[in-house]
Amino acid sequence: MKASLIAIDWGTSNLRASLLDEGGGLIEARSAPGGIMAVPERRFAQALLSLCADWIDTHAVPLIASGMIGSRQGWQEAPYVECPAGLLSAASQLVRVEVRPGAVLHIVPGIRCMGGDGVHDVMRGEETQLWGAALAAGSCCVLPGTHSKWAWLGEGGAVDRFETFMTGELYGLLTRHGILGRLMAFGAARPETFEAGVRLGLREHANAPHVIFAARTAGLMGDIDAQGLPDYLSGILIGIEIASATARHPQRSVTLLGDDDLCSRYETALQLAGIDSTRASDGATTRGQWRVALEAGLVTARMKAPA
Amino acid sequence: MKASLIAIDWGTSNLRASLLDEGGGLIEARSAPGGIMAVPERRFAQALLSLCADWIDTHAVPLIASGMIGSRQGWQEAPYVECPAGLLSAASQLVRVEVRPGAVLHIVPGIRCMGGDGVHDVMRGEETQLWGAALAAGSCCVLPGTHSKWAWLGEGGAVDRFETFMTGELYGLLTRHGILGRLMAFGAARPETFEAGVRLGLREHANAPHVIFAARTAGLMGDIDAQGLPDYLSGILIGIEIASATARHPQRSVTLLGDDDLCSRYETALQLAGIDSTRASDGATTRGQWRVALEAGLVTARMKAPA
Repeated sequence: MKASLIAIDWGTSNLRASLLDEGGGLIEARSAPGGIMAVPERRFAQALLSLCADWIDTHAVPLIASGMIGSRQGWQEAPYVECPAGLLSAASQLVRVEVRPGAVLHIVPGIRCMGGDGVHDVMRGEETQLWGAALAAGSCCVLPGTHSKWAWLGEGGAVDRFETFMTGELYGLLTRHGILGRLMAFGAARPETFEAGVRLGLREHANAPHVIFAARTAGLMGDIDAQGLPDYLSGILIGIEIASATARHPQRSVTLLGDDDLCSRYETALQLAGIDSTRASDGATTRGQWRVALEAGLVTARMKAPA
Repeated sequence: MKASLIAIDWGTSNLRASLLDEGGGLIEARSAPGGIMAVPERRFAQALLSLCADWIDTHAVPLIASGMIGSRQGWQEAPYVECPAGLLSAASQLVRVEVRPGAVLHIVPGIRCMGGDGVHDVMRGEETQLWGAALAAGSCCVLPGTHSKWAWLGEGGAVDRFETFMTGELYGLLTRHGILGRLMAFGAARPETFEAGVRLGLREHANAPHVIFAARTAGLMGDIDAQGLPDYLSGILIGIEIASATARHPQRSVTLLGDDDLCSRYETALQLAGIDSTRASDGATTRGQWRVALEAGLVTARMKAPA
């Protein structure tokens, strides 16, 4: 089938390009290591062209991108759209940058909301995945990661509100640069210490800066060996996130969207918290980009988009 | 007055030695940059001798040390004493290492306790400061720092129980290695953003991994400028600590012990939390070491110890 869109997922640490057909189906995918942070001297056009100049030459189709490429540190800032945020508002606020004469990249804006706690929150990239996942109104979707997102969906797949948890970043900082990492040996999977950590995090989530210290004392006291400590800390942090997110907004079930290994951890942890979870189907990112492109009139649906 | 004790405070990042007279008063103090982590190839004796070999030669008095020097990464591990832990238990469990023939260093053990949350906790060095501060039974003492300690005192100045909060380490990791630091400009004191952070942290302490993200979004949204963000995050983290520590154990007043600048921050934050605070008098570390040495019979009181 004929190509109709080049869909680019350009984050802080990855660049992925997908060539989509006239139904939004995948023709070919490519990726380059290093995201926006790895682009020297802000030469974003060059980075993109070295990945897929041949697609642009051959197919002359529109280009769309989502993710941190639209942040202040990216190619050009695409101002946040306020929640509730759906396809229509995003499609009407695409930011255009020239890749080379005749080729324009359309950058999907991130979204923002004001939480019940009076704190602003933002996301860039995940909103497009959420639109791609097309979840039912009233559902809650968890996107685990460096900055995990809990999002609540409204009518027509719009994101009503969401909350960020710095779980993944905290794990990285504490293990790579902090004192907790000094007692740890990495590489082994230890489901039982992970689960012990989750239980502790769920129970003591309101005392987070204290309870993470357990990942040091459990090592010092010989309760958990060096190989078990990374999963213990991972469990504590994920348990804290789940209990914190659901304290204000209790959930009976959530949808998980993201990296497979990370989703497995959350599945286990959610189960310990008494929360059912299902996985979003694969391909949410390109499906979301396709839908934004459709809404913006960059492409025309020749057949219905893949489910 | 004649020298009677060499008292050494040897932590992770500092080495301080004090020559004390027969009443426990200070004759001379010296320090060297870099604590146990800066000692090459575990040559602790050499590091100590380069700081104060002349004192050992001239006075031939006992040596006592407290702090991380008694940890597994230190000179020799001094096993933790269980809470409630007072001078007597510490004095009876000093660990001896030879500095050179004829000169023995007595290392004060750290202490440990089991929290109501089922989590072990440990301290090394702060227990000696607490014994030096000689606080009333029933009082609560806060020692701000990389790993802040909240300690509750019992009869005879014994430490009944305590809780660690990784506040200072989290601040350092998030600002130096994390994404929050990228929007920050350091160097300016901003009392008003500090206080705004404290209020947020106090209110939202049960949602810690989310609320620290406010130190990014407040920058992205232009609510707080780059110079104000470090103090905003500092306030959020200290607010979280205070609300977390007092949620389980409400306090009307606490004693602050530690670094002057840090104690000032906590004073402000405690006031916003409606908690009175007083400062412990200076010299708690050497006074504590002197008292342990007295209890262990390493020195004999020729006159009463300084108040």
